[in-house]
Amino acid sequence: MNAAPSSALRIGVAGLGRAFSLMLPTFLGDARVQLVAACDTRETARAQFARDFDAPAYDSFDALVADSQVEVIYIASPHQFHAEHTRLAAAHGKHVLVEKPMALSLEACDTMIDACRRAQVHLLVGHCHSFDTPYLVCRELIRGGRLGTVRMIQAMNYTDYLLRPRRPEELMTSEGGGAVFSQAAHQVDIVRMLAGSRATRLRAAVGHWDPARPTEGAYSALVWFENGAYASLSYNGYGHFDSDEWTDWTGEMGHAKDPASYGAARRKLDTVASPQAEAELKANGTYGGPAYVPPKPPGAHDARPWHQHFGPIIVSCDQGDLRPMPNGIQVYGHHAKEWMPLPQPAVPRAEVIDELVAAVRDGVAPLHDGLWAKATLEICIAMLQSDHQGEDVTLMHQGD
Amino acid sequence: MNAAPSSALRIGVAGLGRAFSLMLPTFLGDARVQLVAACDTRETARAQFARDFDAPAYDSFDALVADSQVEVIYIASPHQFHAEHTRLAAAHGKHVLVEKPMALSLEACDTMIDACRRAQVHLLVGHCHSFDTPYLVCRELIRGGRLGTVRMIQAMNYTDYLLRPRRPEELMTSEGGGAVFSQAAHQVDIVRMLAGSRATRLRAAVGHWDPARPTEGAYSALVWFENGAYASLSYNGYGHFDSDEWTDWTGEMGHAKDPASYGAARRKLDTVASPQAEAELKANGTYGGPAYVPPKPPGAHDARPWHQHFGPIIVSCDQGDLRPMPNGIQVYGHHAKEWMPLPQPAVPRAEVIDELVAAVRDGVAPLHDGLWAKATLEICIAMLQSDHQGEDVTLMHQGD
Repeated sequence: MNAAPSSALRIGVAGLGRAFSLMLPTFLGDARVQLVAACDTRETARAQFARDFDAPAYDSFDALVADSQVEVIYIASPHQFHAEHTRLAAAHGKHVLVEKPMALSLEACDTMIDACRRAQVHLLVGHCHSFDTPYLVCRELIRGGRLGTVRMIQAMNYTDYLLRPRRPEELMTSEGGGAVFSQAAHQVDIVRMLAGSRATRLRAAVGHWDPARPTEGAYSALVWFENGAYASLSYNGYGHFDSDEWTDWTGEMGHAKDPASYGAARRKLDTVASPQAEAELKANGTYGGPAYVPPKPPGAHDARPWHQHFGPIIVSCDQGDLRPMPNGIQVYGHHAKEWMPLPQPAVPRAEVIDELVAAVRDGVAPLHDGLWAKATLEICIAMLQSDHQGEDVTLMHQGD
Repeated sequence: MNAAPSSALRIGVAGLGRAFSLMLPTFLGDARVQLVAACDTRETARAQFARDFDAPAYDSFDALVADSQVEVIYIASPHQFHAEHTRLAAAHGKHVLVEKPMALSLEACDTMIDACRRAQVHLLVGHCHSFDTPYLVCRELIRGGRLGTVRMIQAMNYTDYLLRPRRPEELMTSEGGGAVFSQAAHQVDIVRMLAGSRATRLRAAVGHWDPARPTEGAYSALVWFENGAYASLSYNGYGHFDSDEWTDWTGEMGHAKDPASYGAARRKLDTVASPQAEAELKANGTYGGPAYVPPKPPGAHDARPWHQHFGPIIVSCDQGDLRPMPNGIQVYGHHAKEWMPLPQPAVPRAEVIDELVAAVRDGVAPLHDGLWAKATLEICIAMLQSDHQGEDVTLMHQGD
């Protein structure tokens, strides 16, 4: 579909579901990559992929991983398959880009890391919102030292996450469902990156308040870091207050959001009669489904989003605060505030491709590697554990 | 100064400092109260009081408390005197309105509560921002049951608190200085009131990052409640990001705030050469000082503030979220958001007088009594303790 140069990374996609739909504008818009194969269990998705990319779409992961055209497997299968798919991809000498959460247990992360090390292939975890340019720029500002020591981070996000159409297992924590595995994975990753130090301990409260959707929909947590900084994280996915109001009504994907659409996710969910109907609703709107809406062509003016984000974040340092926004960074200094505008991105999530290409083509060690993502998963699991045990959890797998 | 009816509560003021300055518009504007005496150590303040109110201004608390005209003592002396002044007031049969924080130890609270009980006088603690009408209205909405169970509360406030001119002891935690004693007292009080349940435990991190102002300037805390709700509280008083942006640029006192005044507190502080000069700067701007600016006459149009507030707060319940704002309540329901406008207050902080008059004249037990405020102090002290010990603190004095 995109006329890729011959040097383009040849990607095979495992799973043409929602995660893939969200990455598709990137794959279409970034000439450094080319989609050369895919696999999915849904026939309609395979048919659309074959049409769209004139490329094979297999009905099994085994077939995809055996395709000699594929250099990198983008693993966007359901969470519970990430570990096994990564192991198989590495065994076939493919580099791996695996969606977050990396896996559902630290043991699975170790298996994945070991498999990729042994096979000498790169392992990247993403997309995750810690790839978003405003956070990467804040990280550089902090590392530059101008703002002094990081002291306190406040991260919040109020969304309608838990009301979006789901497959049944996405509402089961044991299968990797819920706000902690799916959403804290973003927020924790961003906060760790901005703190610039290893997390040492955590205390959390977790909310699962809707018996009809019996997984975590909310949490609040405190995280302490080796450099003395602490962070307060909060997430609420029950679809009432929308914190995008505090990012100039720019939604998570960087698009302008209409406040008048309030309640849309719940109204849609109200029409659903059963878990099966809900899973069908989700599948229908996903790639290959009858209600699927393809991304607008990259460059179409009205489709041009700002940077993606994951809710309001304030980083407090000795010499000032930083507030990453979708279109720039607000720097609150001692005597003045300064707005650092960011250019509008040409391709969404190009930062993932930056890191992937640098690793595979140039051997640059990625930030978002297996050890990095394992440390984030440890914190997510520790949130559940702290809430359950009613005490701090000491973190033991924060890198090195 | 105000032509008070003969039934007006006759108040004697102990301490004509900043707390008094902030209450003065209330005393001037509310005909249900009358200032009949005062005491202060500063001659200039006494002289101004005598001029303004044609009433005695003593140089000692002992003299004030012996004044037979006084029915209620408003104790606005420095924190470390609250307990002793309350004890003496009660011993003389005076009702007590004591500023927050009520005291610096739970033992002192007990002494105060016992003294007032024995003397059969009322003990109220305030002003505190939990008196602000938007929070009281939210409390009633929650108690009405329409929103279902309270699940999660998020409270934040980013201010320039630590940069305002201080006396040296206000920068010493042992003397009741710092953000935890002075500012958490507000935030905790509001959160407890909205949770509508006894707090059971707490975990906190506390920040003291400026060696020149060696007390707490920031904190983040998690608080758990008996009804299963939890709250995440954060405060940062180091004067960078200003969270009044999220209350429509309405400042703590309900006035419109000019974002262009960014950095003003720090610029002022930069002119100060020594702790003595700083204390002088504070005294100069306080009642009786040469730089004191009296409140505009109540009713003056441009002086008409909205309700006071203590930063953005989101209360998440099963059926919706509540967001108290200075001019109304935003109710985020399942399918629609509803704006409940509040009338502009005629007199600021009239809610304190409501509760005081109801108690003293009609025998209505106040919400903000000694036991209530002691429970808030326990949480503030527990914040310091949790940070120091690195673990949860179990709360034991949350009423009944």
